[in-house]
Amino acid sequence: MTEAEVQERIEEMARAARAAALELALLTSEEKNAILRAMAVGLRAGAGAIVEANAKDLEAGAEKGLGKAMLDRLRLDEARVEAIAGGIDQVVGLPDPVGEVLGEWQRPNGMRLQQVRVPIGTIGIIYESRPNVTSDAAVLCLKAGNATILRGGSEAIHSNRAIAGVLQLAGGEAGLPAGAIQLIPFTDRSSVSALCRMDGWLDVIIPRGGRGLIETVVSQARMPVIKHYDGICHVFVDAAADPAMAVDITVNSKAQKPGVCNALETLLVHADIAADFLPKAAEALRAKGVELRGCERTRGLIEAVPVGEDDWKAEYLDLILAIRVVDSLDEAVDHINTHGSHHTDAIVTADEAAAERFLRAVDSACVFHNVSTRFADGEEFGFGAEIGISTEKLHARGPMGLRELTSYQYRVRGEGQLKG
Amino acid sequence: MTEAEVQERIEEMARAARAAALELALLTSEEKNAILRAMAVGLRAGAGAIVEANAKDLEAGAEKGLGKAMLDRLRLDEARVEAIAGGIDQVVGLPDPVGEVLGEWQRPNGMRLQQVRVPIGTIGIIYESRPNVTSDAAVLCLKAGNATILRGGSEAIHSNRAIAGVLQLAGGEAGLPAGAIQLIPFTDRSSVSALCRMDGWLDVIIPRGGRGLIETVVSQARMPVIKHYDGICHVFVDAAADPAMAVDITVNSKAQKPGVCNALETLLVHADIAADFLPKAAEALRAKGVELRGCERTRGLIEAVPVGEDDWKAEYLDLILAIRVVDSLDEAVDHINTHGSHHTDAIVTADEAAAERFLRAVDSACVFHNVSTRFADGEEFGFGAEIGISTEKLHARGPMGLRELTSYQYRVRGEGQLKG
Repeated sequence: MTEAEVQERIEEMARAARAAALELALLTSEEKNAILRAMAVGLRAGAGAIVEANAKDLEAGAEKGLGKAMLDRLRLDEARVEAIAGGIDQVVGLPDPVGEVLGEWQRPNGMRLQQVRVPIGTIGIIYESRPNVTSDAAVLCLKAGNATILRGGSEAIHSNRAIAGVLQLAGGEAGLPAGAIQLIPFTDRSSVSALCRMDGWLDVIIPRGGRGLIETVVSQARMPVIKHYDGICHVFVDAAADPAMAVDITVNSKAQKPGVCNALETLLVHADIAADFLPKAAEALRAKGVELRGCERTRGLIEAVPVGEDDWKAEYLDLILAIRVVDSLDEAVDHINTHGSHHTDAIVTADEAAAERFLRAVDSACVFHNVSTRFADGEEFGFGAEIGISTEKLHARGPMGLRELTSYQYRVRGEGQLKG
Repeated sequence: MTEAEVQERIEEMARAARAAALELALLTSEEKNAILRAMAVGLRAGAGAIVEANAKDLEAGAEKGLGKAMLDRLRLDEARVEAIAGGIDQVVGLPDPVGEVLGEWQRPNGMRLQQVRVPIGTIGIIYESRPNVTSDAAVLCLKAGNATILRGGSEAIHSNRAIAGVLQLAGGEAGLPAGAIQLIPFTDRSSVSALCRMDGWLDVIIPRGGRGLIETVVSQARMPVIKHYDGICHVFVDAAADPAMAVDITVNSKAQKPGVCNALETLLVHADIAADFLPKAAEALRAKGVELRGCERTRGLIEAVPVGEDDWKAEYLDLILAIRVVDSLDEAVDHINTHGSHHTDAIVTADEAAAERFLRAVDSACVFHNVSTRFADGEEFGFGAEIGISTEKLHARGPMGLRELTSYQYRVRGEGQLKG
């Protein structure tokens, strides 16, 4: 297709999404749940066909020379399709945020005001590889009353088309408005740019993927973008930390699952506890296979590779840990605010005043006292499901659940009040 | 200055703003209020100098041939400076949103979570002509703990520099961190583009001005933008409306102050009441000097200029009203959602069910039942002060007060919890 043809197709889809959004906003929770249940049934019934479509992607991926990890992320089997359907069951069970009254008050002239949660409207989601996102994202958006346009990675196109097809067909029979869930069915690269120009119809774009993808969207999008950037997460071991707890939290934050955004990347240690804590920590970390990179003072206490300035800005997503000894809590806070990514940062201390100062001074979405950074997660927070972890400060910060997929409106009721 | 020099200067300012924001976030309400009080005192003491600086702008404006209305908007006298200082007194009296606990809960593993309001951080404000915005915007942002970079219009540069200078000096003596309120002191056009590239340091840009300015910012900004676009506001007179109330609300919405974004632009009338209502409304509107433009059915009932298709999308900001007769509430809703600007729309009806359907189905920031559209305003809503009326759906929708100038963070406290 030419770019103009792509643009035209995307605009048709965006207009249809807007029309669907106006219908979705009027559905009751029961109506939305009935649609979701039908989708889960459809996915289970269509598991065979979805796995077959996925086989085409796997074959093409192997031919293209995709790595083993990549192919594994791409792979769907009956169990994984069941997990996707189970995800829908879970969303059915979550409370509907739409219609929640956030505030209610009366003015001296008698007007009664309500601030009420409403759907955002239309959401563009651009994502890479994992085909489960096609269902997970669309379903979460739908529960919050939003229409979605999905743009998955080209390597998963057959899987994504199969999943979206099932959701549309099964959902449609249960009352899903046409246009409520749309997948861009072609893989032309210009479709990303075209989506970014649909600010007349799309209320927001959520890119889920690597930095390159997010950068492209940020620089082109005319509508708001909810970014999910890096997690350069810190643990600060304060002078008043319990050393055993500090070791446990450090090891858990770093090594429990190193490839995710809430994993620890830089460890900051107060000078007063460093000689006691660092050798214990080093031993426990090495036992998990973690490579240690340290500042000069760190290397005076334990064996470690010298850090470069780049290490403070590194999201390793691997069994590597940068370590720095600092002289004060304020120095730790300053390091985090300067080098971190404002995602998740933790302090380990028995000193309540130090903890409170840290929590207030660190400019991050999630600030933790005496817990592992790995808890920065919508499920762990109790949101039931998450669409991601936003690194935005506006609208949605940190783990994003259903509430973060809503907007609000002011409803005002009166008896003919006029402005004097 | 060259563009590179402008870029360099703006980057220095943006870095300073970020550093100030981290300090501002730690100030108590009392400390912020002490700074604000000192600023109000400073403005009153410096009124003479501010009016003198303003005289230079007025002279330059007259030479440039600015119109009378423009010059009046630009003019400052002692009374207007007193009004600006009074605005600060009012902000002192408003509750501080920072630190408010938005939610608090415990997880099965014992972790205690809090969602707490925190400042956004750094805010760029780009505005035109009225020099009072220099103080009004900076002060509201400061109360919410934010640092600001202000970029006013070139025609008000002397006034803006004088006001910002007083705020910085008087505030600084009372503990305002350096860099907390900065005005771009030069008028190079490229400073707007440079600001739009400061996404490393600026958390959001709020453009206040005409569509051209907003379009420039939207297309260039890499950070979130909170737009204040047009208000194409509607009143729908339902079949079950009280005709007298409908006439009053129509006239008040249109004519009480036609040049503002919450003024009525298009009147929709249910066919069943049109023959009774429209002649009465036309008489009352004409008495206020309103020009009527009507659809064919309207013109069958009253005298009116024929509307063109452009009229449904027009923000007249003037004593002109477009009128359309519709056959149903759904047709009115459809007209509003298609042609409106999602700002403020009202229904007049005695039928509660019709009203509730309208409030739910209209996709606008403010939806009103039996009140004038002119009440869509932060002061009228009881917010104490407003920075504008956002046409965004994300983060802040409708009138924006102090709360809308904040973000939040999750604070999690535990006793060494690890992820299993």
